[in-house]
Amino acid sequence: MMEVFQTVDDLRQARWENPTKIWGLVPTMGFLHAGHLRLVEQACEQNDRVGVSIFVNPAQFNNPNDLEKYPRNLEQDLDMLKQAGVDLVWTPTPQMVYPASYQTYVDVEQITQKLEGATRPGHFRGVATVVSKLFNVFQPTRAYFGQKDAQQLAVIKQMVEDLNFNLEIVACPTVRESDGLAMSSRNANLSPTARQNAICLYKALTAAKDALLSGQQSAEMLRHIMTEIIESTAMTQIDYVSVAHPQTFSELEKVESQALLSMAIFVDGVRLIDNILID
Amino acid sequence: MMEVFQTVDDLRQARWENPTKIWGLVPTMGFLHAGHLRLVEQACEQNDRVGVSIFVNPAQFNNPNDLEKYPRNLEQDLDMLKQAGVDLVWTPTPQMVYPASYQTYVDVEQITQKLEGATRPGHFRGVATVVSKLFNVFQPTRAYFGQKDAQQLAVIKQMVEDLNFNLEIVACPTVRESDGLAMSSRNANLSPTARQNAICLYKALTAAKDALLSGQQSAEMLRHIMTEIIESTAMTQIDYVSVAHPQTFSELEKVESQALLSMAIFVDGVRLIDNILID
Repeated sequence: MMEVFQTVDDLRQARWENPTKIWGLVPTMGFLHAGHLRLVEQACEQNDRVGVSIFVNPAQFNNPNDLEKYPRNLEQDLDMLKQAGVDLVWTPTPQMVYPASYQTYVDVEQITQKLEGATRPGHFRGVATVVSKLFNVFQPTRAYFGQKDAQQLAVIKQMVEDLNFNLEIVACPTVRESDGLAMSSRNANLSPTARQNAICLYKALTAAKDALLSGQQSAEMLRHIMTEIIESTAMTQIDYVSVAHPQTFSELEKVESQALLSMAIFVDGVRLIDNILID
Repeated sequence: MMEVFQTVDDLRQARWENPTKIWGLVPTMGFLHAGHLRLVEQACEQNDRVGVSIFVNPAQFNNPNDLEKYPRNLEQDLDMLKQAGVDLVWTPTPQMVYPASYQTYVDVEQITQKLEGATRPGHFRGVATVVSKLFNVFQPTRAYFGQKDAQQLAVIKQMVEDLNFNLEIVACPTVRESDGLAMSSRNANLSPTARQNAICLYKALTAAKDALLSGQQSAEMLRHIMTEIIESTAMTQIDYVSVAHPQTFSELEKVESQALLSMAIFVDGVRLIDNILID
């Protein structure tokens, strides 16, 4: 039986009903898709119990309009999680997570400076803060995050190491639509034409990957290849196109071994991100 | 048998040897005195097991000279803790707590602005960060802090509430020498004459308290009473003298019900703090 709670006290009571059970946590902002379900599936395989949080975290939205437009459908989410075999769901209100007296924030300083951190001020502070809270509320043994948010994954791993959270971060591969578009709750905000054009992100990433595997080591050239494909697609606006070191997120000049190919693109005003990790 | 470990891994193994036991944590910077032992004693009464950390936390020292001069005596500390019945002691090196890649900090924003926070920039950021780490390393059910560091206590309580740490903060009264001087590791740095003069903090606080209980409600007058006593004592230099709200730490004009009388005074160059809470 899946249980759903709003308050921390109720959730904790259910969480600790049997203290010997091992818990996995899948933090989400809801409007769930196959990518989330992949995380849940893996959590179910590796733990006795699985908890999911559904909370559109205001602290990580630098743009109030983006927060307002973020898609929501709690009823459908709960149906999907029930089907998936989840044990416990936390669906707090913003006031429960950030009461009026709220004033504590977690900052991961260096690796938040580039890419998403550079174009979305305060975003990772909001992420690190809410994830700290989720870790303390669920006290899981493992927590699951998608590779689609590559920098978020790195920020959270760094935070876990730095603050000595007693848990393991499990990274799961990006799940894609059949045409390659990375699954994202934000895809719901795309018009049919924009949805078609949104394929350009994956096309650009794979073109750069192919060039790299064919011997093109110039990061400048790889960024150029990706930029050309995006710019030749209607309705798009580039936020950034990057060939960076996958741990520091600094832009590379020459790709020696590892690289994170990544981008953030507005497609008809909807901000989409995607990446391919080259190892 | 008391066990002493340096690494997080060793400590965690001992901490979780019997997961059904309830743990109390007493975080310290070492050079232990009767005030620390009072915290340990209370922790022993209320929990199955008691852990103590001994770590002079560089992140909370705004002044490198103060950090260097901070008294240390690990051997004596361990003897005292063994006598007191402590189960587990963590004595990490600074490099273990803050490795080269370290970059995560916890900020409590509002209540850290006044008093200690105002005169020691970064101090409470260092405190909140290291205490978060200690909570995650020990995962205690209760953690013990002295009322002598009144603002620190409030900052940690706020952090626990905000970040949903699953533990209880227990405040313990200030322990004093027979002449009223609040116990502090820093007292060891006082020359015999400075030690005599250091009584002025408690004298000033009790004089203000007596005036308040006799009907003096003007915070200005109460600060004046304290300032006079400090200034008439040789070797002293006032950092601040305060009559503030005990939750917000804003200076009061008129004392209605609650007040925190507090001060930070350099006595022969040694910075001492003390306070009396009026309820």
